[in-house]
Amino acid sequence: MSSTHGAAADSGSTSLPGLAEIADVGVDRIRGGYSRHLFDDADRTLRDWFTERASRLGLDVERDRNGNLWAWWGEPGPNAFVTGSHLDSVPGGGAFDGPLGIVSALEALGRLRDAGHRPARPVAVVAFAEEEGSRFGVACLGSRLLTGALHPDRARALRDEAGRSLAQVYADAGLDPAAIGPDPARLDMIGTFVELHVEQGRGLVDLDEPVALAASILGHGRWRIRFRGQGNHAGATPMQSRQDPMVAAAATIARIPDLALAVEGSRATVGRVSALPGGTNVIPSVVDCWLDARAATDDATNALLQSIRAAARDAAAVNACSVEITEESWSPTVRFPDDTRAAIGAHIAPRGQSVPALPSGAGHDAGILAAHIPSAMLFVRNPTGVSHAPEEFATADDCAAGIAALERVIRGET
Amino acid sequence: MSSTHGAAADSGSTSLPGLAEIADVGVDRIRGGYSRHLFDDADRTLRDWFTERASRLGLDVERDRNGNLWAWWGEPGPNAFVTGSHLDSVPGGGAFDGPLGIVSALEALGRLRDAGHRPARPVAVVAFAEEEGSRFGVACLGSRLLTGALHPDRARALRDEAGRSLAQVYADAGLDPAAIGPDPARLDMIGTFVELHVEQGRGLVDLDEPVALAASILGHGRWRIRFRGQGNHAGATPMQSRQDPMVAAAATIARIPDLALAVEGSRATVGRVSALPGGTNVIPSVVDCWLDARAATDDATNALLQSIRAAARDAAAVNACSVEITEESWSPTVRFPDDTRAAIGAHIAPRGQSVPALPSGAGHDAGILAAHIPSAMLFVRNPTGVSHAPEEFATADDCAAGIAALERVIRGET
Repeated sequence: MSSTHGAAADSGSTSLPGLAEIADVGVDRIRGGYSRHLFDDADRTLRDWFTERASRLGLDVERDRNGNLWAWWGEPGPNAFVTGSHLDSVPGGGAFDGPLGIVSALEALGRLRDAGHRPARPVAVVAFAEEEGSRFGVACLGSRLLTGALHPDRARALRDEAGRSLAQVYADAGLDPAAIGPDPARLDMIGTFVELHVEQGRGLVDLDEPVALAASILGHGRWRIRFRGQGNHAGATPMQSRQDPMVAAAATIARIPDLALAVEGSRATVGRVSALPGGTNVIPSVVDCWLDARAATDDATNALLQSIRAAARDAAAVNACSVEITEESWSPTVRFPDDTRAAIGAHIAPRGQSVPALPSGAGHDAGILAAHIPSAMLFVRNPTGVSHAPEEFATADDCAAGIAALERVIRGET
Repeated sequence: MSSTHGAAADSGSTSLPGLAEIADVGVDRIRGGYSRHLFDDADRTLRDWFTERASRLGLDVERDRNGNLWAWWGEPGPNAFVTGSHLDSVPGGGAFDGPLGIVSALEALGRLRDAGHRPARPVAVVAFAEEEGSRFGVACLGSRLLTGALHPDRARALRDEAGRSLAQVYADAGLDPAAIGPDPARLDMIGTFVELHVEQGRGLVDLDEPVALAASILGHGRWRIRFRGQGNHAGATPMQSRQDPMVAAAATIARIPDLALAVEGSRATVGRVSALPGGTNVIPSVVDCWLDARAATDDATNALLQSIRAAARDAAAVNACSVEITEESWSPTVRFPDDTRAAIGAHIAPRGQSVPALPSGAGHDAGILAAHIPSAMLFVRNPTGVSHAPEEFATADDCAAGIAALERVIRGET
């Protein structure tokens, strides 16, 4: 399977010229796939590539004070049509999540320009910073800062795994950490935002369609669950007198699937665990687990979180440990506006055919912007249904269908 | 509690001149305590310190081909009396585990020399490489290589977390990787080996004694348990269709305490878990846990391992994952010889008083050497009973009692 997927992923990324250009950037030899994290070498290389490629199309590229990149076709101004996505990845992510939306946008703009289209509204392609939250733990970092969904004080104090603060990392990237935060003037310029993205499930496979619009995004959040016990020697400490936070964490994680199954349509995941000190022959003193929980309504997400919180408290008590749960991010359920979706759908399928609408389990910058601006998303079919992993895929034909749809939308809107 | 322990640890390490000299080396600001791992900056600094300090005592320092350091009083030769321990630590370990034995040995030799003692046998202080196995996963690496308990081919292929092989790391340290392995000529020179070590439990606290001899070392081993599932998106993948290796790992770890309690006197610990890719919003594709398991007899350790193996297989099956268990190291139960212990005890308490004998839950280089050479261990009381953590401690008086005991042993034996 993996060699088939590997070959498929290669042909997929090389069949799209833009993806082929960045196929070598941020390859993760240990995890497989790509690791491209905010302002690391790979992310900086991708930013340079974006700037260079957009400039070749005659677009004017600027970096805003939150680290997002904007490539303008025409003078920046009010009622702009903005499309784009993000360049960063999860650790060991696929080739399509993020870059597909940017490559497709640049490709669509290039075709429109070559066809002599003259947009009536300003058009921009945006690359949002740190959508995956892989470096600083907050997903949609750049769009949250732009819209004020994340307080700049909280953002500045975020730290990466090496202990470096966001303020330091932004300063090293040539940005003024004091200037990050809400940017209402820029937000006011955006009239419509459309994000094209690879689908992260099998909805389009089941529908046998290449492209869909997004109906909604599951509400979701991230929490750090920290268990504290007593670090000690793994050989010299009898089982009876242990305060082992790893056992408390494991007992909690083991219960999560049943707790999520009890809340219909909800999802809960621990993808990352860190033990302090982390020696094989050492009972840890602290174990952190990161919980990702999502559900169709905010009430359901809260109910799920409460049951996981109770399970963590039980497990801590049984193991003579303490537990502390910290919210790292929270995004309410998003319903994309019906009228925007209808207008966009009409551009894509002008002869009265309908474009299917799918819910998204994954969060997106479009979900953050939707609270402020008419927003929509276009999904491109993913035959593996797998995402955030090297098996993520889209065929060349489906990528072409996505670009064509985006081209029609921009033409229709501008 | 932690501030009390912190203050105590400070006064403890500074009350012993040798420990005070290295109190700043390898301080771990994130974990607390010390992180000193084979041939890292801290370990190299400690090796330089050892060489310099032993040379000041008039000892001749050499590094053997397995990376162990030897400081000789008199010409190296047969029937040598060797004492020592190790300089490396677990991640975030205490100040005493390892260095106390080396500092005490150097201190005892210095006093004997100052008192005009002329040993009848060659005497050496040894600092064994990578006793904790924190870099390459195999505890007692240096003594295992010396005695042939670890095959040099297997050792050369070991990799650290950064993916560097032991062969590369040894070569960078100026050692010939082709030359590592059994060193019978050196082993044949050792007539007696005595390791002084901080106690890693509360045995001496309960006995109200400062110093004990070791009766035995629990048999113990380390295994890597690798669960493989299907990496995927944490939000877009329904709970019903997951193959989540983190849940399988957690279900296994959560059962381990009960499985260990079912085998009398046994201990089992998972101190370290690593998820691939390790993103908060990603179902991992692979989760590794490292198991440390120990029991009073090898049969009991095997029985414990079999029950954990069965639990891991169950948990993998329930979660549609696979599991693979790899032994990283194995040390059979060690009983230190009664006659050596009696002779050493007679030197320490010459007037017919008895020195208590305690079992050790922790492994030591003395346990590896005991299969080849008359060996013994001296334990110094640890009032916290905690080890492999910053709370590990010994009072200045008890450290002095340990040094005095070692001095009497060397005088009596040589």
